[in-house]
Amino acid sequence: MKNTKALILVLFMALTTINAQEMQNKLSLMPWPKNVSENTAKFYINSDVTISVFGEDQGRVRNAAVNFLRRLTNRTGIFLKNGFPSFNDDSANIKVYFSSIANLSIDDDESYTLEVLENSIIINANTDVGALRGIQTLLQLTSYDNSGYFFNGVSINDAPRFVWRGLMIDVARHFQPVEVLKRNLDAMASVKMNVFHWHLTDDQGFRVKSKSFPKLHEIGGDGFYYTHSQIKEVVEYASNLGIRVIPEFDVPGHATAILAAYPEYGSVKDTTYTVERNAGIFNPTLDPTNDKTYEFLDTLFTEIAPLFPDEYFHIGGDENEGKHWDANPEIQKFKKKHNLKTNHDLQTYFNIKLEKILNRLGKKLMGWDEIMTPNMPTTAVIHSWRGENEGFSKGGTLIDAAKNGYNTVLSAGFYIDRMLSIEHHYSVEPIGDVSLTTEERKRILGGETTMWSELVTPTTIDSRIWPRTAAIAERFWSPKEINDIENMRLRLEVVNFRLEELGLTHIKNRDVILRSMTNNNDISALKSLSNVCEPLKVYSRNAGGTEYQTYSPFTLFADACVADAKDAVAFNSLVSNFINDNKDKENVLNYLNLWAKNYGSFSKIENNPNVKPLKDLSKNLSEVSEKLANVISKETLDSKTLTSIQENIAVLKAPFMDVELAILDELESLISYCKSNYLTN
Amino acid sequence: MKNTKALILVLFMALTTINAQEMQNKLSLMPWPKNVSENTAKFYINSDVTISVFGEDQGRVRNAAVNFLRRLTNRTGIFLKNGFPSFNDDSANIKVYFSSIANLSIDDDESYTLEVLENSIIINANTDVGALRGIQTLLQLTSYDNSGYFFNGVSINDAPRFVWRGLMIDVARHFQPVEVLKRNLDAMASVKMNVFHWHLTDDQGFRVKSKSFPKLHEIGGDGFYYTHSQIKEVVEYASNLGIRVIPEFDVPGHATAILAAYPEYGSVKDTTYTVERNAGIFNPTLDPTNDKTYEFLDTLFTEIAPLFPDEYFHIGGDENEGKHWDANPEIQKFKKKHNLKTNHDLQTYFNIKLEKILNRLGKKLMGWDEIMTPNMPTTAVIHSWRGENEGFSKGGTLIDAAKNGYNTVLSAGFYIDRMLSIEHHYSVEPIGDVSLTTEERKRILGGETTMWSELVTPTTIDSRIWPRTAAIAERFWSPKEINDIENMRLRLEVVNFRLEELGLTHIKNRDVILRSMTNNNDISALKSLSNVCEPLKVYSRNAGGTEYQTYSPFTLFADACVADAKDAVAFNSLVSNFINDNKDKENVLNYLNLWAKNYGSFSKIENNPNVKPLKDLSKNLSEVSEKLANVISKETLDSKTLTSIQENIAVLKAPFMDVELAILDELESLISYCKSNYLTN
Repeated sequence: MKNTKALILVLFMALTTINAQEMQNKLSLMPWPKNVSENTAKFYINSDVTISVFGEDQGRVRNAAVNFLRRLTNRTGIFLKNGFPSFNDDSANIKVYFSSIANLSIDDDESYTLEVLENSIIINANTDVGALRGIQTLLQLTSYDNSGYFFNGVSINDAPRFVWRGLMIDVARHFQPVEVLKRNLDAMASVKMNVFHWHLTDDQGFRVKSKSFPKLHEIGGDGFYYTHSQIKEVVEYASNLGIRVIPEFDVPGHATAILAAYPEYGSVKDTTYTVERNAGIFNPTLDPTNDKTYEFLDTLFTEIAPLFPDEYFHIGGDENEGKHWDANPEIQKFKKKHNLKTNHDLQTYFNIKLEKILNRLGKKLMGWDEIMTPNMPTTAVIHSWRGENEGFSKGGTLIDAAKNGYNTVLSAGFYIDRMLSIEHHYSVEPIGDVSLTTEERKRILGGETTMWSELVTPTTIDSRIWPRTAAIAERFWSPKEINDIENMRLRLEVVNFRLEELGLTHIKNRDVILRSMTNNNDISALKSLSNVCEPLKVYSRNAGGTEYQTYSPFTLFADACVADAKDAVAFNSLVSNFINDNKDKENVLNYLNLWAKNYGSFSKIENNPNVKPLKDLSKNLSEVSEKLANVISKETLDSKTLTSIQENIAVLKAPFMDVELAILDELESLISYCKSNYLTN
Repeated sequence: MKNTKALILVLFMALTTINAQEMQNKLSLMPWPKNVSENTAKFYINSDVTISVFGEDQGRVRNAAVNFLRRLTNRTGIFLKNGFPSFNDDSANIKVYFSSIANLSIDDDESYTLEVLENSIIINANTDVGALRGIQTLLQLTSYDNSGYFFNGVSINDAPRFVWRGLMIDVARHFQPVEVLKRNLDAMASVKMNVFHWHLTDDQGFRVKSKSFPKLHEIGGDGFYYTHSQIKEVVEYASNLGIRVIPEFDVPGHATAILAAYPEYGSVKDTTYTVERNAGIFNPTLDPTNDKTYEFLDTLFTEIAPLFPDEYFHIGGDENEGKHWDANPEIQKFKKKHNLKTNHDLQTYFNIKLEKILNRLGKKLMGWDEIMTPNMPTTAVIHSWRGENEGFSKGGTLIDAAKNGYNTVLSAGFYIDRMLSIEHHYSVEPIGDVSLTTEERKRILGGETTMWSELVTPTTIDSRIWPRTAAIAERFWSPKEINDIENMRLRLEVVNFRLEELGLTHIKNRDVILRSMTNNNDISALKSLSNVCEPLKVYSRNAGGTEYQTYSPFTLFADACVADAKDAVAFNSLVSNFINDNKDKENVLNYLNLWAKNYGSFSKIENNPNVKPLKDLSKNLSEVSEKLANVISKETLDSKTLTSIQENIAVLKAPFMDVELAILDELESLISYCKSNYLTN
C-alpha cells in the first residue's frame, strides 16, 4: 500500500505542475489499481498489434478482446492488420492468460496482473472476468507523443476492495430501452463495476412482460416494458462483461402499478388503482394477509425468476408506511390473531413467506434496509440506504446489518439522482474507522449507486449517471487510501470523455437539448451558462413530487445542466488562489470577461419560449461579471458600484428554471475581497 | 396542382426575404403535401392539449399518438395534463379519425386530410397508416411566436406519388445493432417513408441467426448477427410506424460469408472460404448446378421467411460475374446439358428455382436488375440500380422493367453512400418525360435510397443517411413539380435538426469524433474545417476497396465530415452574389476572416497524431483566406500576392485524410474575379 500512496503523491505533484495536455497523456487510470509501478517503456501501437487469448474461452474474453481492438483502432486511427483476436498464439504481442471461468457470484476472483513492456504486454488472471478487468486497465493506458500512440509501461497487480460494485437503474419511473442499459453496462465494465441492479417495478410502472399476468405489463407498464427475450439479451450482454444482474420487484409497497392491473391483491378492498404519475411515497400496498397474494407472487416469480441466473433477488420492501394496512380492519384483526404487533412485524411475516418462495426458486432474498427487523432471517441481504443523515448512528444500517449477521450492500451516500457533487460521493467511506471483526467486515459486500429515474429520460440519464459513477466505482474498487479529490478530478476528466467511445450520451445530449430549446439557433450563450449552472439538488427540483410528472418535459435548461458544472469547478479554485495566494488574477478575469459577454449573445435568442425565463440569469450574470472585472482590474470599488453588484447577486440567488448558479459563493467571496481591499468610499 | 405550385412560389419568395428565425417559424413541411392551403389561425399549444383516436385501433395510431405527445412536450417544454391519448373522446382538441387497418402492402391507402383551426385539429384518413402520416405532418407544423408555441393554421389534402418509398440499410459490411435500425425507422416515419429494405447478407457477413445452419451466424457473422426475436422486434417496430420490412439474402453472388460457413455449396469444390474484409466484387458464388444448394436455400428460407410478414423477399442477384462458374468444368457441362448459353441464363435457371421456393413460402421474388433476363417471369420485382451512368438508355433499367411487364423500384440515383450532394439526388426524377402507358406507370412502384455500409459504422451511419434521405423521401412522396432546390434546402435545415428528437446521431456524433481525434482538446478549429470539407465522393475514398477494410478506423476526420458541408454551401451563394451582383461582400469577408484565423487555433492541437496530417489544409486555408480578404477589402492585388495565393490553392487541391476542400471552386472564382478587377501589375 505504501508504494501506491507514494506513487499517487508523486503523480499528483507531477500532474499539478505540468499542463493539461501532458496530464492527459499521463496515467488516467480509474479505478486506481491496488499496486502500480511505472517503467520507462512505451509500447507503440502500430498496425502489427495482435492480441491472443490463452485459456478455455467461453466467450467473455473473446468478446472483450474484439471490443478492445475496435476501441483501440477507433481511438488511435491505426489500421490494424488483424481485426480479431487469435487463440493460444505465442507470437501475439498482447497476450491474455486466465485459467478458469468465473461463476458470476460474490466469490469470484477478479484479480489480475498487467505488464506493459516495450514489445510485449501480458495480462494474467485466475478467471476470465479478472482478464476483462485487466483489458480495461490496458485501454486506459493509451497515450500519445510525437511518435504516435502508445501504452505506458507499467507493472500492475490489482484486485478489488469490495466484491459488490453496482449501479442501480430505475426503469419504472421512466422506462429505459435496452440500448440505454447496454451502453451503461459497457460503461460500468470500463470502470470495473460488476453488479447491475435492475429496479423493474414501482408505483409508476411494471416493466416486465408477464405471460401469467398480462395486465401487469399492459396496464401496469403503459406499453413500456421488456419482453423475456430482451431481458435474456440484457442478462447475456452483462454476463459477457462480467456483470451480474439483480432484478428488483418492489413489494409490498411501491406497488401501485401492480394493483392498477390486479386490484384484488391490494390492501383496500373493492377499489381500483391507477398507475401513479407523480413522484413520492404512495399508499397502495399488497395485502399480506391474503393467501392469494402469495399465490400471485409465487406464480409471477416462478415465471420471471428463471430469466435471471443470479442467486440474489431483490424484493424492495422499502418505504411502506402501512397506511392502507391501518385502514383495513381485517388486516388489523389478522395482526392481532398472529401476534404481529407492528406493521413492521406484519411486513416481516410477508418477507419470510417471500423468502420461502424465492428459496424454492433457488434465490436469496435481498431488500432495502427496512427488511432488517428482529425476526428477519440473516440469510437475507440488507441493502443499506439509510445512514447518519436519516437519523442512524455512525455507519448507518450498513454497519448495523454487518453486526447483526447480515450480508450487506451500501447505497446511502451514493444516491446520484440527488445531483450532488462528485466530491460528496467520492468522500463517502463505507467503513471508515468503525471497528469490525473479520467476519463482520466480510459481510460488507460493497456498494451501489442508485439512479432513481423520476427526473431522467433516455435522453438525459447518461449525464446523471456519468461521470460521477466512475469516481464512485473507484471508491468501491480501490484501496481506501486512494481519496485525493483533486487527483481524482484530473483522472475523471479523461475517463469522462473516453466514455463517449461506448456510445454514452452524457456529453453530446447536452447540446441536443440546447439546440432544441433554441430551435436550432446559436447555442453558445446557453452552453456557457450551462457550464456554471447546476440542476437543483436533493429533490428540490421536484418539491413534493408533483411539479414533474412522469410525462413532463425533460428537455429544459436544467436537463442540459449537470452536477459539478465545469466552469464553476474551475472558477472555484482560481478564486481561492486569487484571494488566498494572490495568484491567477488573469484567469479569474478571463472567466469574468467571458460571462460579461454572455447576455450579448443570449439576447439574440431570448424570444424563444424556453429561453426567455433565463433572461434575468444571463443579464445579471453579465452585469455582475463586467462590474467585478472592472473593479478587480482597476483595484478600486465605489459604494455605488458595490450596491449595484449586490443587487445583481440578489437576483442571481433565485433559482431559474430549476437550476442554481453554481458560482454564487465564489462571486460573493470576490465581492468581500474587493470590499476589504478596494472600497474607496 | 396549380395551387400547390403557386403556394410554393409565394412561400419561397417570402422565405428568401425574411430572416432565418422567421423562416424557421414558417411551414417546414417535408415531404411537401399534395395540397396545402394556409389560414390565419394559430392553434396555441398549452397544457390542455389532448389527442383522441377514433376508429378500431390495433396499436399503430395509439403508438403514434403517444409518441406525438412525448415529442410535443419535449419540443415545447409544455407540461401537458394528459400524457396519453384518449379514445373516441369528442372533447379532445386534436382528433384523429380512420376507418380501417392497413395491411402493409403496396395497395395501402396512405392519404389523409389535416385541418388546423384556432381551437381544433382534425386528421382524417381511410387507414390507420394514413392517420400516422397526418400526425407527422402536424408535428412539422409546430412554430412559436411571442405568445408561445402553436400549430400553423392549414388545410392539407395529401397522398403519396409513389407507393414504395424505401431506405435500404446494408448491415453486412458493418453490422448495425437494433437501436440503429429503430432510430432510423423513426426518422423514416417522420418523413413518411414506408419500406425498410434490410440487406442482411453479403460477402462480409451473414447477419441472421440460423437454427438450421448455425455456422452461418457463428462463422459467417463473426458473432455480429440478429436473433429471431430481435428480427421480430424490428419488424414489429416498423409495422407500428407503417413501415414494411423487405429482407434481402443476396445470392448466388455476394455469398462469401455463406460459403465461409458452408463451402460445400460453392462453385469451387474442395476449397475453403474466409469472410471477406475488403470492399468490392468477389468471386465466391453458390453452385446453381448442385441440388443440395437448393435444399440448403429451401431449408434456410423456410426457417427465416416467416420472420418477415411482407410478401416480398429480395434475393439480391447482383454483380455475379460468374468467374467461378467459368472455372468449373462440371458447371460448364451442366450449362451445355441444359442448353443454358450464358451465365445469365444459368443465373435465371437459379432464380426460377428460387422463385418456386419463395412462392411456396408465400413470397414474391425481388432482385437487383441483373435478374431481368428474357426468361425471368414477370412476377418478379426488378430493383433498378443501373441507369444512364451505367450505360443504359434514358430511364435505365427502371423504364425497361416497366415496359417489360415487371413491377419495379428505383435506386439508381439514390446511392447515398457515394456522398454526393443533396442537390444531385433531389434532382433525380424517376420518370421524367418518358412516355408510359397507365399500366406501365403503375408498375413503377417507387424508389429506395441505398446505404451501403463499407465505410459506415453505428457511430457514423446516421450522418450518411440524414438529412439527404429526407429530401429524397420528398422526391418519392411529393408531386413531381415540387423541385425547387433552394426552397428544399431551407425546409431541410429545419427537418434536419428536428431529426435529433428521434435519437439520430447525425449532428452530435460529428463532435464526438472530433473530441476523440483531439484527445478532448479544443475542437473549434477542426469543427470549422469540417464545415468546409466533404468526404471523398463516389468510392474514391476507398479506391479498389482495399484502403478501408471492415475493421479499419472510421473515426477519422472524413468521418466527421458530411456531404453538403454547411459553410461551403452558404459560401457558394455568397460568392456568386458578390461576383455576379456585387452583393454580400461583407458576408464573403466574414467567412474569409473566420478561416484566416483557423490555423491559429489548429496549431494548438496539431501534435495529435490524427490531427497532424491536416496541418497543410488548415495552414493554407488560413493563408489564402487572409490574403483574399485583404485583396477584396483593399480592392488591389499585386502579382506577387497572386502567385502566393495560387501556391496555396495548389496545395489545397490535394485531398487531406480522405476529405476534399468543398470551397475550392468558390476560392478560384474569387481569385479570377480579383485578377480581372484588382490586379495592379
